[in-house]
Amino acid sequence: MAKNLPVFTLKHFLVLSLALNVSLILRAMYESEKGSLYRVLSLQQQRSSVIAGCGSQEEAHVSKKKHLSISLPSLDTTTSTGIEAEAEAEDGGERIINLDHGDPTMYEKYWQQVGDKTTIVIPGWQSLSYFSDVSNLCWFLEPEFAKEVVRLHKVVGNAITENRHIVVGTGSTQLFQAALYALSAQDASEPISVVSAAPYYSSYPSITDCLKSGLFKWAGDAQRFDKDGPYIELVTSPNNPDGFVRQSVVNRSGGILVHDLAYYWPQYTSISFPADHDLMLFTVSKSTGHAGMRIGWALVKDTEVAKKMTKFIELNTIGVSKDSQLRAAKVLKVVSDSCEPSSSEIECFFAFNHQQMDMRWKQLRVAVKESGLFSVPDFPPQFCTFLGRAFEPQPAFAWLKCEEDINDCEGFLRDKKILTRSGKHFGFSPKYVRISILDRDEIFNLFIHRLSKIIS
Amino acid sequence: MAKNLPVFTLKHFLVLSLALNVSLILRAMYESEKGSLYRVLSLQQQRSSVIAGCGSQEEAHVSKKKHLSISLPSLDTTTSTGIEAEAEAEDGGERIINLDHGDPTMYEKYWQQVGDKTTIVIPGWQSLSYFSDVSNLCWFLEPEFAKEVVRLHKVVGNAITENRHIVVGTGSTQLFQAALYALSAQDASEPISVVSAAPYYSSYPSITDCLKSGLFKWAGDAQRFDKDGPYIELVTSPNNPDGFVRQSVVNRSGGILVHDLAYYWPQYTSISFPADHDLMLFTVSKSTGHAGMRIGWALVKDTEVAKKMTKFIELNTIGVSKDSQLRAAKVLKVVSDSCEPSSSEIECFFAFNHQQMDMRWKQLRVAVKESGLFSVPDFPPQFCTFLGRAFEPQPAFAWLKCEEDINDCEGFLRDKKILTRSGKHFGFSPKYVRISILDRDEIFNLFIHRLSKIIS
Repeated sequence: MAKNLPVFTLKHFLVLSLALNVSLILRAMYESEKGSLYRVLSLQQQRSSVIAGCGSQEEAHVSKKKHLSISLPSLDTTTSTGIEAEAEAEDGGERIINLDHGDPTMYEKYWQQVGDKTTIVIPGWQSLSYFSDVSNLCWFLEPEFAKEVVRLHKVVGNAITENRHIVVGTGSTQLFQAALYALSAQDASEPISVVSAAPYYSSYPSITDCLKSGLFKWAGDAQRFDKDGPYIELVTSPNNPDGFVRQSVVNRSGGILVHDLAYYWPQYTSISFPADHDLMLFTVSKSTGHAGMRIGWALVKDTEVAKKMTKFIELNTIGVSKDSQLRAAKVLKVVSDSCEPSSSEIECFFAFNHQQMDMRWKQLRVAVKESGLFSVPDFPPQFCTFLGRAFEPQPAFAWLKCEEDINDCEGFLRDKKILTRSGKHFGFSPKYVRISILDRDEIFNLFIHRLSKIIS
Repeated sequence: MAKNLPVFTLKHFLVLSLALNVSLILRAMYESEKGSLYRVLSLQQQRSSVIAGCGSQEEAHVSKKKHLSISLPSLDTTTSTGIEAEAEAEDGGERIINLDHGDPTMYEKYWQQVGDKTTIVIPGWQSLSYFSDVSNLCWFLEPEFAKEVVRLHKVVGNAITENRHIVVGTGSTQLFQAALYALSAQDASEPISVVSAAPYYSSYPSITDCLKSGLFKWAGDAQRFDKDGPYIELVTSPNNPDGFVRQSVVNRSGGILVHDLAYYWPQYTSISFPADHDLMLFTVSKSTGHAGMRIGWALVKDTEVAKKMTKFIELNTIGVSKDSQLRAAKVLKVVSDSCEPSSSEIECFFAFNHQQMDMRWKQLRVAVKESGLFSVPDFPPQFCTFLGRAFEPQPAFAWLKCEEDINDCEGFLRDKKILTRSGKHFGFSPKYVRISILDRDEIFNLFIHRLSKIIS
């Protein structure tokens, strides 16, 4: 019988059956997650007030407590009690808390709540070719990914994409090297100097110098740079490790600027204007949290620079994973969708994670105050065009200073089984450490509790 | 009502509904593909004779014609007629045939026939972290991928994996650079020489020298290398571009060998023994055809070398796409499954693609003979432990020589709208060109037809 059934009839059956699946899956999810539906709905309600920027922070905090009580402590701004204390008690203070890396696992929570909207399905016969778009200068750039990059910048308003080439990279780390390659002269008598104002991203020196290149060479703190001749200045804004908004500091001719804008997103800092620099670097690792994808992108004004960057990536890795580009395209699309005014299904990605960061920084400041041994930077509030209100930066890293006579802050915290990165790696004082704020709730809460108990 | 329905009952409904989907999808596929099921079955029948190595090549050719007639020409060994001639007639000889790159799109056919066995589904909340396995020296290596690499080498018998570290890379290109970094001394007074016997892979010199590294430097043809001191010799076997099996040629102390075994798979060459070198490079691009994944792996004997290679990839790209590693794991698993004696569902990947290559080389040799203007290498047959019989190499590239007074073979073919890569890029004579044999049927057939019509 089935053999004689026409295909279009089978397809109709299939559609019906798929619809049945979807409804059953949704039902099962809602039933088994015990109220997660209501959480999503309450996120929605809360979202409108955050986007509109009308509610006070205290109001936001109250509504946050309502729907996030399952996985986050009900912590107010003066005492630290709740789940993290329980975790610490269970753990006995023996567990090593590794916050050396900026591993963005905090974002798992949002993506779990979003469910299968960002699920990607790749059949085995897809994406075999090296090439994505031979008509594009960057021939390994997936058109769908490029489209979603442009859209996301338009939604957030954090960068100009018009009249720019997009170059995709295996993370922004590869694009940073591609930029150095593209901006240095192949026939120069000596390598071009690469500088950045201290404290600078700890990996810049080692990445720049790892192959002892004859094209470029790390020349340290931009504020102390006094060598004649051309140079490349890296401007990281907001800055890694300290979170401050930055501009170039070497004010003379012959300089070429590379803007690393990995953290210029509204969960970390106010979006003041669409950035409009010659060469800007971004990465999904710190925007959406998908570090494992290894996807970054550069917005490049000059065609020759974009061509040379593409050439570098061709020589370095013959392009960039198509699977990850396709997955990144889907994730960026959902982020943009979630923040469009018309979205009613899911909480805006940036609003949700802005609140996560807001809460974490409040907890951190309380813990720092309780301990009395540390300090973290104070930031002036700035108006954010995306969220429609002013707020203080809440960076992905805490730039923590050990006060009193503690000179090796990293070592001091290591004794408390908290792993951090010493200020010395950032061209700065070892009285400072960089601490990731992007770990999972459990680890972050354990850290906050342990930090608050370190007293002189 | 639904609200009170217990979840396990819903799940039961779901399972039933999913089963219904699967059966309907399978039915629709079989109906709409008009006989592809029978093609798969005939592949199966044919497979047993190939694996067993009992059928003569002529027999294999006959059975091949039976099931591949849909997309491949019914070409015998003396005349070239059929689909490619039709294509050429439609095209009028004006279409540019680009065989400069080794883009492995030939493999799409196999993966389409396999269907959804290699489809991967990645939810949005998966693989956010940078880390894959912190207990592994190569901390960004997905355990599932590592497991399938080991299994595949065991199934094929082409490399020893025992007592080796696996280092994953963004293609073997990145691993090649990681190897140079790992094998050169950080404190050496001058860069170590990197050599390979000509004709060598055309990208080796530009990759090695692109950053003018102080650690390593391209020193050309290994056969002419007479400099004292340490050196790294790249041994590509089978060789790109010419397909010959190779061994090291610089026979003196101080040399370190890197074996690029990208093409040491039974679709291209006989597997004579499991390779047992210190540092061996492989890639999915040329083994399974998934170039767009950008996944390669190194088998490394020395722990310190593996550590330094891992460090390089950390500095270069902070690891390797997890999405592509997970997808590669699934693809390698299906390849191994397909070639296990117990497999009855799908044609062994290597047997199928061995036949594709066998047919293509037969067509190529006929076209070369018809033209009279060219020659391709003759290879001695060797016994293959995997296929259980002897055969001549059938490389991924044709190393074509222009005979008579044609000195610029690349230019000569460019005039015929066939793009190839000149021998001069391989440290060899411009009388030679490298031509990819791995393009889709349509392009390959067009090429064969056009080549056969070029007469003096």
